Amino acid sequence: MTGLFITLEGGDGTGKSTQSALIGDWYTEQGREVVFTREPGGTDLGTELREIVLHSRGHIAPRAEALLYAADRAHHIATVVRPALERGAVVIQDRYLDSSVAYQGAGRVLDPDEVRGVSMWATEGLVPDVTVVLDLDPAIGRDRLDAANKQFDRLEAEALEFHTRVRDSYLAMAAVEPQRFLVVDATLDRDAIRDAIIARLSELS
Amino acid sequence: MTGLFITLEGGDGTGKSTQSALIGDWYTEQGREVVFTREPGGTDLGTELREIVLHSRGHIAPRAEALLYAADRAHHIATVVRPALERGAVVIQDRYLDSSVAYQGAGRVLDPDEVRGVSMWATEGLVPDVTVVLDLDPAIGRDRLDAANKQFDRLEAEALEFHTRVRDSYLAMAAVEPQRFLVVDATLDRDAIRDAIIARLSELS
Repeated sequence: MTGLFITLEGGDGTGKSTQSALIGDWYTEQGREVVFTREPGGTDLGTELREIVLHSRGHIAPRAEALLYAADRAHHIATVVRPALERGAVVIQDRYLDSSVAYQGAGRVLDPDEVRGVSMWATEGLVPDVTVVLDLDPAIGRDRLDAANKQFDRLEAEALEFHTRVRDSYLAMAAVEPQRFLVVDATLDRDAIRDAIIARLSELS
Repeated sequence: MTGLFITLEGGDGTGKSTQSALIGDWYTEQGREVVFTREPGGTDLGTELREIVLHSRGHIAPRAEALLYAADRAHHIATVVRPALERGAVVIQDRYLDSSVAYQGAGRVLDPDEVRGVSMWATEGLVPDVTVVLDLDPAIGRDRLDAANKQFDRLEAEALEFHTRVRDSYLAMAAVEPQRFLVVDATLDRDAIRDAIIARLSELS
């Protein structure tokens, strides 16, 4: 493979889409083909599976849900990402296996290492060249919550605890694999985040 | 668990449904609760997944297909089979993990041990008490083919080779786990097959 596989991780509202576009622009200026994609839902099959997971939420056994995400991933990597990498493209992807490990592991029902193992089997072991974590304290994200939601204090508190475990999981993974992960403070301004990411990508090739 | 988990394996037309009913009658006469079920498709989620696999056939990456079957299995075991076993029922199931290993392995794309590993993770390692293999030479099954299909000679020959690998896989698994498997000659008459199965089940409890 001659392409580059770059994944972005982080909660909603941390700027993944903005940064994806900026990274894409940088590669496009260099004459590289850029493919933007995401999980779940990067294929027709994935869209159908995403519908099932969302519409049946609460009624799907935890392992079944994990396997549905893995099925989406297997199909997406085999039919979209690997072909793009094989023709030399830069694939910029919103969420990948680290999302499964962080979110499903944070739910405390499934073993994170087992979740990772299923994903690795699904993708025949495809690991990104660089994974950018847009890191944000969940309490800050919580402060940004719509005032309309403030009646759900207890539920929001549970959500905060959950998102704190998700964040801790990302930071722990980044500590174990510093050569793959780049953690960026998502409270920085857009250009500062971009510059930090581009500095890391510049080292690649 | 105080229930019994009995699975039936074998190609279409080998008499799985007939024998399931006869086994069920035998347990019902003893006052046991009997639950008949099947994979894929033993739940609402499974029915949806079965639709996806069938309607998208040929366009799903092999690992994605295997993971969809595993998701169906995870949900089915967690929501139907385990609850039944926990309340002491006899679960009589048409196809289970050995089908995945035999068919997906016979396709020569996926490693049978890996397929088994995914299923074991999906089900938290639920192994049947008894697995009945209704064994039939695929050439005999072929002889029963509708004359209308005889124009597809080359394809049928490929199918025969595939089904021979499936059969060999079942027989190999049965040889490795004789304490779980019972292989019965599906050319015997209905009552002789029933008697062979009941003789084995009588040893159980």
